[in-house]
Amino acid sequence: MTAVRKPIENLRFEIIPGIPLITPGEALSEILFDAITDAGLSLVNGDVVVVAQKIVSKAEGRQVALVSVTPSAEAHRLAVATDKEPALCQLILDESVAVLREKPGVVIVRHRLGMVGANAGIDQSNIEHDDGGSALLLPVDPDASARRLCDDFGAACGQHVGVIISDSMNRPWRLGTIGGAIGCAGVQVLDDLRGGEDLFGRELKVAMVNRADSLAATATLLMGETVERSPAVLIRGLPAIESTECARDIVRPPADDLFK
Amino acid sequence: MTAVRKPIENLRFEIIPGIPLITPGEALSEILFDAITDAGLSLVNGDVVVVAQKIVSKAEGRQVALVSVTPSAEAHRLAVATDKEPALCQLILDESVAVLREKPGVVIVRHRLGMVGANAGIDQSNIEHDDGGSALLLPVDPDASARRLCDDFGAACGQHVGVIISDSMNRPWRLGTIGGAIGCAGVQVLDDLRGGEDLFGRELKVAMVNRADSLAATATLLMGETVERSPAVLIRGLPAIESTECARDIVRPPADDLFK
Repeated sequence: MTAVRKPIENLRFEIIPGIPLITPGEALSEILFDAITDAGLSLVNGDVVVVAQKIVSKAEGRQVALVSVTPSAEAHRLAVATDKEPALCQLILDESVAVLREKPGVVIVRHRLGMVGANAGIDQSNIEHDDGGSALLLPVDPDASARRLCDDFGAACGQHVGVIISDSMNRPWRLGTIGGAIGCAGVQVLDDLRGGEDLFGRELKVAMVNRADSLAATATLLMGETVERSPAVLIRGLPAIESTECARDIVRPPADDLFK
Repeated sequence: MTAVRKPIENLRFEIIPGIPLITPGEALSEILFDAITDAGLSLVNGDVVVVAQKIVSKAEGRQVALVSVTPSAEAHRLAVATDKEPALCQLILDESVAVLREKPGVVIVRHRLGMVGANAGIDQSNIEHDDGGSALLLPVDPDASARRLCDDFGAACGQHVGVIISDSMNRPWRLGTIGGAIGCAGVQVLDDLRGGEDLFGRELKVAMVNRADSLAATATLLMGETVERSPAVLIRGLPAIESTECARDIVRPPADDLFK
């Protein structure tokens, strides 16, 4: 928590149109910056660009052909238990540190990055078909990916622009996915209100607000999932801050799990 | 899911300033409508007003003096187990259908409205002090509260204005609260994409997006918790829709819990 909290009076979320299909090795920051410029949206201090995990993963070559994967005995066992392809199960195992739940159709894991969710964040939609099928893994280090984009935007326009890499997440007790932040740079991630006072001078108890997830949720809503939508959203209205926080800071240490 | 999904190009979230402290029995819709008008924000079709649960509860007289509560034997037991006041534990039990976890400082329950969270959503911040302390319960029926506000706004301005009643929520595996929707009227709550296709013609699998929670998250971020902030936010840019969905629709049936 390096930043001083400032009030936000209003926020504007805007789809960044005109982003082409991304292929491995492409310079994502240039593509995004060009799309922002072409849309007449000059970046200014405090702007935050939210980028869908999918296009970051694609640019970083994280697409894996399932035929290239050799499933282990454990992957075969998980495949039977969950009614999923053995090669996909192998990728899920490779990307995880622990399998928390398994049942037909469902594998809940703790990802090596710390997040808990279905299928280790591995996605099979919006990626090119090939004969054996393929899967798209999360970026190797989404915070580092966000930092590169943040630095590139800063170099391109001389403004302090934050970056959030978003992904859709399931929740145990609520229907419907919402977006969350899996990579962050140059943004305030957790807003620590501890020590603050309420309207009547009483110390605040609920005292940590997840800014990055809150912003990712609405941005992801705008992105949608289907052909007419865009994988990037510009948020305008946040204060420009220097922050060293990252999305890893969001992961609740397993020992602190209130619900366990 | 009564509504047809339409693309959203941009969304604007704006604090509604000038809302006074709310006392029991006050006509909240009039106070909000006046504040919106005084701020020069004329309501238009598709606008959504997000209202913090706290002021809805206050207007509905849901503040309870702890000295007025007689704790049962079970409340006394829970108080010892969780290091909380027996009267507060009685209120938590009264508002819940099941206690899921208890440990020092923490009571996780399934609220009678279906949500799972800490302390049955009972809040002790931002309410007037009195000698014995007091607590603020959730509205009796937040969807009905939202419906009344929605209808009142419609009658006052002749426009279709949606309402979301928001509350801060904890999550098992992620630090920092985010806002969620506990009452909804006149808004699309769950955006059902099932049957849609991805960019490559493959059927979408992650296919239900929680619009109401996604919007409540950013709105709650703007509200903040401290003196300088506001308990209501206007969202502009959504399509005007007729919807009979409500926040109860969000509750995942316990049998469908992916994480169990």
